[in-house]
Amino acid sequence: MSRTVYLNGEYVPEQEAMVSIFDRGFVMGDAVYEVTAVIDGKLWDFEGHVARLARSLDALEIQNPLDRETLLEIHHELIRRNPDFTDGGIYLQVSRGNAGDRDFVYPAADVAPTVVLYTQSKPGLLNDPKAKTGIKVISVPDLRWHRRDIKTVQLLYPSMAKMAAKKAKADDAWFVEDGKVTEGSSNNVYIVKDGKIITRELSHDILHGITRAAVLRMAKEAQMQVEERAFTIEEAQSADEAFFTSASAFVMPVVEVDGAKVGTGTPGKVATRLREIYLEESAKTAL
Amino acid sequence: MSRTVYLNGEYVPEQEAMVSIFDRGFVMGDAVYEVTAVIDGKLWDFEGHVARLARSLDALEIQNPLDRETLLEIHHELIRRNPDFTDGGIYLQVSRGNAGDRDFVYPAADVAPTVVLYTQSKPGLLNDPKAKTGIKVISVPDLRWHRRDIKTVQLLYPSMAKMAAKKAKADDAWFVEDGKVTEGSSNNVYIVKDGKIITRELSHDILHGITRAAVLRMAKEAQMQVEERAFTIEEAQSADEAFFTSASAFVMPVVEVDGAKVGTGTPGKVATRLREIYLEESAKTAL
Repeated sequence: MSRTVYLNGEYVPEQEAMVSIFDRGFVMGDAVYEVTAVIDGKLWDFEGHVARLARSLDALEIQNPLDRETLLEIHHELIRRNPDFTDGGIYLQVSRGNAGDRDFVYPAADVAPTVVLYTQSKPGLLNDPKAKTGIKVISVPDLRWHRRDIKTVQLLYPSMAKMAAKKAKADDAWFVEDGKVTEGSSNNVYIVKDGKIITRELSHDILHGITRAAVLRMAKEAQMQVEERAFTIEEAQSADEAFFTSASAFVMPVVEVDGAKVGTGTPGKVATRLREIYLEESAKTAL
Repeated sequence: MSRTVYLNGEYVPEQEAMVSIFDRGFVMGDAVYEVTAVIDGKLWDFEGHVARLARSLDALEIQNPLDRETLLEIHHELIRRNPDFTDGGIYLQVSRGNAGDRDFVYPAADVAPTVVLYTQSKPGLLNDPKAKTGIKVISVPDLRWHRRDIKTVQLLYPSMAKMAAKKAKADDAWFVEDGKVTEGSSNNVYIVKDGKIITRELSHDILHGITRAAVLRMAKEAQMQVEERAFTIEEAQSADEAFFTSASAFVMPVVEVDGAKVGTGTPGKVATRLREIYLEESAKTAL
């Protein structure tokens, strides 16, 4: 069934949702995005995504076109207008808009940002069988730009990395820079050693994951030890466990890194427990 | 007057030229581009741009949708259909196309690339008064991705750099990485010291400029000395001359770098001579 999507104030059939060839999202990669998970028709971690969207827009000096209430209403309206959609994600993109021509200089203030939202259905998202088996990753050099804390649509390299993983019969790729892992192609990554959860500290080098923030908070509340520092591929290979977090996969065990089994090669206790806690807690605050 | 633009096989009014919100150029920065200068209704360095387009597409495993003859015909047809357009550039963009939804994984082979071409009029381009006065640049850290040899539309950072230059009342920004200049925000850069032209060697770190290749060839033919190596901002500030090359500005003198005058603070002899030679020679092979 065709989706109804949101585009600049209107709800339209997905086939009719078009933007200008001059839109800065198309000609300059000048746009940011968010993906909010939807489970049983409810939004998970909505507040976190709205807050990060505001930060991304602010960092790029793009005017924030919609307040929290309006965004929440659009998300809910998309769920209502797409009755087959109960589980998956709602993708949101804001570009600097259509200036009517291509120019490196930002358009005048009266050019409105382009706002697009649409649903992506993933039935059974909560019970992804990968969570039971864990996933395999390869490492690739991190060739992305250096403001990864801004969630822009400049996703060509992550896309290339995902394709490299696919060719290597792995599930995902981890980026390595200056000998240390930065993050996964679309997620934050963690290892567990001697009971301690180790994950890279926040900086311009990585995305400030909404799920990362929630999971670390929950880990601390559960009296787990957390150390925020970068780690190497070798450390990951000799760790007891590894996992990643993202808005659409929650907490996902990683059982192989560059062909080497991590721990027993099966999902670890810490990752499994954190996934349970995260799913349980997030459901409570779903909107 | 409204332009007629080319979009996926059709010539349409610019206001009707729209792409899907799922186009990978819009959601992933997954697209490449070229700009060919047009002077007196003729294309400059067309062969170079077609060759580089093919290299960019090949590097990204995007199928090359149009052969040289077809591209040439489209360029000429755009000139015919936009009679007010005689000087400026023709912008060409090829994205990986519209897969009907957003996914990091490349779409199936039957998804055709999106092809867009349009004219950008710049009357008097050849006699840009800046060529007589020279331009001022500031330096900024190079935060771009690390495959700058592929001419992708991931231009947000160059756009931010251009805005930073504007705020600093300069004309452009030069990128600096590991203490050395890589290139300008949308051009290749050079200094001249003791009669020798110095410019960074080709690698993944910089764009392989079409105008760069032509100008270096002409410099050598004119018995000028050329050294291909990276240089620092301090070297540029104490050089005899500086300049940049690009398809739309040709050879452009740079007379100030981070507030320091280069040489006498006026366009240098080498840059001025190279501009003359380039304009003269390019006009001869225009198509």
